[in-house]
Amino acid sequence: MSNNLLKQKPIVLNEGLEVFADELQQNGVDVIQLDWKPPASGNIELNKKLARVLLHKNEIDKANRKAVDKVLNARPVWVDVGLAKDVIPGFEENTISHAGPPVTWENMCGPMQGSVIGGLIYEKRAKNEAEARKVAASGEYKFVPNHELSTVGPMTGVLTANMPVMVVENKENGNLAYAPFNTEGKGKPFSFGAFGEDTQEMLRYITDTIAPAMKIAVRSAGGIDLKNIIARALNMGDDCHNRLVSATSLLWKSLIIELAKNRVDYEVITSLGYTMYYNDWFFLNQSMAACKATMDAARNIPCSTMVTAMARNGTEVGIQVSGLGTQWFTAKAPKVKGLYFPGFTEEDANPDLGDSAITETAGIGAFAMAAALPMTKLVGGTVADAINFSKTMRRITLAENPAYTIPTLDFIGTPTGIDVLKVLEKGIIPVINTGIASKRAGEGVIGAGIVNMPMEVFEKALMAMPD
Amino acid sequence: MSNNLLKQKPIVLNEGLEVFADELQQNGVDVIQLDWKPPASGNIELNKKLARVLLHKNEIDKANRKAVDKVLNARPVWVDVGLAKDVIPGFEENTISHAGPPVTWENMCGPMQGSVIGGLIYEKRAKNEAEARKVAASGEYKFVPNHELSTVGPMTGVLTANMPVMVVENKENGNLAYAPFNTEGKGKPFSFGAFGEDTQEMLRYITDTIAPAMKIAVRSAGGIDLKNIIARALNMGDDCHNRLVSATSLLWKSLIIELAKNRVDYEVITSLGYTMYYNDWFFLNQSMAACKATMDAARNIPCSTMVTAMARNGTEVGIQVSGLGTQWFTAKAPKVKGLYFPGFTEEDANPDLGDSAITETAGIGAFAMAAALPMTKLVGGTVADAINFSKTMRRITLAENPAYTIPTLDFIGTPTGIDVLKVLEKGIIPVINTGIASKRAGEGVIGAGIVNMPMEVFEKALMAMPD
Repeated sequence: MSNNLLKQKPIVLNEGLEVFADELQQNGVDVIQLDWKPPASGNIELNKKLARVLLHKNEIDKANRKAVDKVLNARPVWVDVGLAKDVIPGFEENTISHAGPPVTWENMCGPMQGSVIGGLIYEKRAKNEAEARKVAASGEYKFVPNHELSTVGPMTGVLTANMPVMVVENKENGNLAYAPFNTEGKGKPFSFGAFGEDTQEMLRYITDTIAPAMKIAVRSAGGIDLKNIIARALNMGDDCHNRLVSATSLLWKSLIIELAKNRVDYEVITSLGYTMYYNDWFFLNQSMAACKATMDAARNIPCSTMVTAMARNGTEVGIQVSGLGTQWFTAKAPKVKGLYFPGFTEEDANPDLGDSAITETAGIGAFAMAAALPMTKLVGGTVADAINFSKTMRRITLAENPAYTIPTLDFIGTPTGIDVLKVLEKGIIPVINTGIASKRAGEGVIGAGIVNMPMEVFEKALMAMPD
Repeated sequence: MSNNLLKQKPIVLNEGLEVFADELQQNGVDVIQLDWKPPASGNIELNKKLARVLLHKNEIDKANRKAVDKVLNARPVWVDVGLAKDVIPGFEENTISHAGPPVTWENMCGPMQGSVIGGLIYEKRAKNEAEARKVAASGEYKFVPNHELSTVGPMTGVLTANMPVMVVENKENGNLAYAPFNTEGKGKPFSFGAFGEDTQEMLRYITDTIAPAMKIAVRSAGGIDLKNIIARALNMGDDCHNRLVSATSLLWKSLIIELAKNRVDYEVITSLGYTMYYNDWFFLNQSMAACKATMDAARNIPCSTMVTAMARNGTEVGIQVSGLGTQWFTAKAPKVKGLYFPGFTEEDANPDLGDSAITETAGIGAFAMAAALPMTKLVGGTVADAINFSKTMRRITLAENPAYTIPTLDFIGTPTGIDVLKVLEKGIIPVINTGIASKRAGEGVIGAGIVNMPMEVFEKALMAMPD
């Protein structure tokens, strides 16, 4: 940022009592109220840095307007299906991509190791857990964050070369994003770290049945407008992160026409019908790919302090920021507060995990929880909590998305575009709703709940900003 | 009712200031607060009658508990499809059934005459409007209210012998109810009084394609649980009267499995797919039949003052009451307040029309509007209005339905079982949301809005109650 302090109108930074700021504002002075709360409160170094960065408020505001406009104007459309190695640029035969910021095999949490084991068995590179662990540790495979391959995956997010992915195009911006198909349905879900025979069966079913049928349907439809489905589903009780029953139903209504038109085998339609009937999470991966295609369009805007990714690998969590490129700002993954399936407790839970916080990054998910009140039954909390999440997130975001509205809040748009500076100023950290995986490899899903992205990652992002 | 005044604990009727009632209640006296508002206010005859009826409050309460329990415990399941004359007891070849209380051909409103004309053309008894009008006026056909044939139909509700209907069984009580299929989709809808060639085409499509396919699917599924679909849809933004997008989607998810399993022609599945994709009202008729099967179980309970039917024929509106059998209590049909399609105004609108108020009678529809906030965009009003409807209707109903919950009101059950006495005591009349038909035969749908059942019908019902 250029140092043009003397050319700018003065801005007053007010810390503490808001009454001073109010008075100055009434007298036409630009005031930034520093509403510090712990942990930033009292940290002199952070305060000074924030003050220095905020001297460039005009430039930052312009950059953030540009960034959030990219988000609001995005038009994500599901256009194709293909194997990861065939369609994702840079995805090699020996790539294994995963959720969250970078992590080595040795530092991976239990469920992520479980999914890597499952992936190597799926790839026929190992016959069992022991063999797979050897291969994983051998250095033969390269572990890469999904986000660095324009990809997102729920929970462990593990993806191998011969797994099918959906291709989502942001028609406004031209960029592509990718996601595997949802692995819930039959057996323990692969994405939660399971790798046994029932999980392998589901992976083969996705590759052999779901993906080819979807490819026919999506191409025949000339693309499926995901923004339209998300917009409608938000008015039908979904948040499009952990409640997706309406979005899945709307997607299926589009796909079935194309499957029947193309005379896809009756057995395939029947089995897909059961998948769509029983797996209300099917649309999660489409929702995530849509949000990834949306947020990637807002990357690399100089001076923008808007968050472009929040992701968790179960060991660490991290964010990326538009003006700071592909740099990760990380912290230890926190525990999730939630509701557990019978027989499980917080003791069994892995810390926060998954790329699915791309939905909150894009302004839906927990940010739209006031649109999805029935979700409180899954993740805990009250109706008032859910409404409060959406209201509070508005305080740390740059805009309301007119395409994504919240009926219970008089149809205001979802709070969109997390601003690192607002997070620090207000002392409010983003909320995320999430599934909970067992901390042990192979065990799978044990609950769902609510978690926050730690303040530490925003503090680190601030410190990396140019003065 | 037996006159056992001297054996009962005294009950005080308090009219006017509630403070007197409050004080008496604090002293353990049963008090009935008469919260009179116009039009009943000041009507001495009605006041006296209400006082006499309320002397039997204990008996009435018991009967109403029994009646509303029938409603809460109902289990409506769609079990079959057949032609009206084949499956509805008492439906003759020359029967034409219609919405609302009884009405002669001469007194029918424009759109109902339009549907009768359309029905006679469909039945090949007339070639055009002029011929059909002659036949209709000739006395050859018998006009019968749907409600008297365990049937309900939206708007004009007109049904002829060779039209297919769905058969819904109340598995708890054993009674059956019937409804035609929804006629919206292609062309101007028959149910709104249209009768031209595009309407005839849709009627033939229902008979030749929709009904046979649905019969296969419903039988193959062993019945479709409509209570389950309504319950889920109420948590997905539907009220199941004028917002049915989620319910239609959930129904389709069930049906498609059976259609594919039974290898129904791909062309048929494709065309049904388009119907389900474009006609978000498809489930209206299933919802109505479910409510009819529910409410009929609560008929003829001696002393019960619960409303078992609210229905409108476009000329008159009427109610039936459990303890008063099949007697209709009627008033002139009121105008609907609503939003009109471009080119139409209230001047073009027919007064209130249709059996679909069976949904409100059963506690959904406008009574559940707080669950369906996006509906305000169709029928007008604000989010606050919609929430207020559900809260206010609780004041004139007997129970909350634990199966049908309203997320925005902390998941309280929908207000269920309208009590004629509460309506009179509180001066609050039931609210209904509704489509609006043009008053001219053949013109079809022109808008949607909100209407109330007039106080007069409740006053008449009161006067018919035994002392």
